[in-house]
Amino acid sequence: MIAFNIERPDQSTLDDIQHKIDFKTKPLGALGDLEKLAEKLCLIQQTLEPALRNPNIIVFAADHGIAESGVSKYPQEVTYQMVLNFVYGGAAINVFSRQHGIELNIVDAGVKGDFVDVPLVINQKIAQGTRNFAIEPAMSIADAELAIQKGADLVNQIAAKGCNVIGFGEMGIANTSSASVIMHKITGLPLLNCVGKGTGLDDEQLASKTQVLQNALAKHVANSPIEILNTFGGFEIAQMVGAILQAAANKMILLVDGFITTSALLIAQAIHPAVIDYCIFCHQGDENGHKGMLEYLNAKAILKLNMRLGEGSGVALAYPIIQSAVNFMNEMASFESAGVSSH
Amino acid sequence: MIAFNIERPDQSTLDDIQHKIDFKTKPLGALGDLEKLAEKLCLIQQTLEPALRNPNIIVFAADHGIAESGVSKYPQEVTYQMVLNFVYGGAAINVFSRQHGIELNIVDAGVKGDFVDVPLVINQKIAQGTRNFAIEPAMSIADAELAIQKGADLVNQIAAKGCNVIGFGEMGIANTSSASVIMHKITGLPLLNCVGKGTGLDDEQLASKTQVLQNALAKHVANSPIEILNTFGGFEIAQMVGAILQAAANKMILLVDGFITTSALLIAQAIHPAVIDYCIFCHQGDENGHKGMLEYLNAKAILKLNMRLGEGSGVALAYPIIQSAVNFMNEMASFESAGVSSH
Repeated sequence: MIAFNIERPDQSTLDDIQHKIDFKTKPLGALGDLEKLAEKLCLIQQTLEPALRNPNIIVFAADHGIAESGVSKYPQEVTYQMVLNFVYGGAAINVFSRQHGIELNIVDAGVKGDFVDVPLVINQKIAQGTRNFAIEPAMSIADAELAIQKGADLVNQIAAKGCNVIGFGEMGIANTSSASVIMHKITGLPLLNCVGKGTGLDDEQLASKTQVLQNALAKHVANSPIEILNTFGGFEIAQMVGAILQAAANKMILLVDGFITTSALLIAQAIHPAVIDYCIFCHQGDENGHKGMLEYLNAKAILKLNMRLGEGSGVALAYPIIQSAVNFMNEMASFESAGVSSH
Repeated sequence: MIAFNIERPDQSTLDDIQHKIDFKTKPLGALGDLEKLAEKLCLIQQTLEPALRNPNIIVFAADHGIAESGVSKYPQEVTYQMVLNFVYGGAAINVFSRQHGIELNIVDAGVKGDFVDVPLVINQKIAQGTRNFAIEPAMSIADAELAIQKGADLVNQIAAKGCNVIGFGEMGIANTSSASVIMHKITGLPLLNCVGKGTGLDDEQLASKTQVLQNALAKHVANSPIEILNTFGGFEIAQMVGAILQAAANKMILLVDGFITTSALLIAQAIHPAVIDYCIFCHQGDENGHKGMLEYLNAKAILKLNMRLGEGSGVALAYPIIQSAVNFMNEMASFESAGVSSH
């Protein structure tokens, strides 16, 4: 498998960062989570003057064989249709990315159907959707590794254009099923804590989805992160694993979205734990398992707006808050410079 | 007292608003709190195409006689110094307002000391700080009414320049003491649930502050909202009461910040309950009582970043999220227009 060189950021500048934060014209700690965010950004960039440059979001789209088992409320063709919606600018992620000047990259990682004469779709298709993991492994190990490679390569292309902050989102009917099983396998939490209503299943449909996943789990042996990925994953999740690992290797600020994106991160951090030091958690989603994922990672998300959309929507909505953390570090006066009594 | 004509927004458009939200290209309800926010904005503006125009924040600053009783960690002159910091652009609220193109108005509502040759400070001074309500009422009823009038007049001036969305913040050493007592008197919650560490008291200082407030409460009879305001309020709080009432009377979108601002809203809604229909709650602050205030008002804030700064900082940070609610209503494709299967 492709090797990633991921180092934990040097922590020796922590005192200087904290000192700068503490001498801003505000009571000690009064900017709360924004201060912790600023500290993390400074550590990642090894600077007291962090900067966000050419922000990008990549939306990875793919289809899932498990959809045949009736685990989703929406028909599979919605994946294809939504990719067109992304390209034509009508989806939520388009609206929010435009608002904040975030460049949006739409990737066909394995959608069923081809995008002929749709040049804005980045073609990284591994296959026409995964196989149904209720019956057989979703993909081969070779395809999982190819997907990781393609995800990583795209991040390098975007980094070469001067981007230092990148977020990931996804689209793929039935992909909460993949994410739930990945969560269960990586965290060891009971499957019931990992399965949720996705785009809006009722209680009966949820019970049926859970049973399908329970049976699938009983069918396969998969222990290493790459085995869990090839057996239960999706092509969008596998490409995100590569994208996440490469972004951390590049020391980029890495913006994590919801349940599906975090399932890719679970795989990535199982391979390279230091990945976490580059991650900003943008939104705690409404999908049942996401809270448990964040707790497992000891992470607190910036936003909690009860959304369950994916697409990178949580990343785009949280972006201005991250920019605010950068701005207060760079622009606020200190007690000394403003002539304000500090105690 | 000045009369405000505040009407509840007509609810008859609710079905049309919900229909528009539900046919956007996303699973039903998938944008969570953003959908409720969009609904409220549409109701306030009585439209399916809401718009935010010329956003403004007013920071009301004033000093408090109760500071003499040792209830704050910072010396009283910090109020004056911070007003200068606002005017010179070095405070957190300057940074965040600049980021989002929000016009900032700095008001001397009753700061100790005069701002000579500082034209950017709007002079609405009632007096050189309130009296110490541990000993006597903080202000006369006439001064409370004058403050309400001045707050209302300023909102009208800003509205006349085309602003339809306005937020309020404050600065005033010791003003958590006023807000705590107001909260206790309006909500009926035990004083201990209303008092907190302000800018950073330790446990012993907090106990002393609580005792000061307990004694002050025993000294005064104050039952009506205006009596509570004149007895325990601050000039910045009183001007905010007028500003809030006038903004609601003008059918403006009203952005509520933290603990102190919400104490002014508690007074305002006790006078005119319909005020609440115009309020967007921006940030749940870290000050002890704020959560209880929001629960009393049956409100959920957009952000919870553990800040305890005031200044309107929560308003400015939440502003892009409110803009996102507007944008998704106006810009997202519908299932029909995008050719996406809705079920």
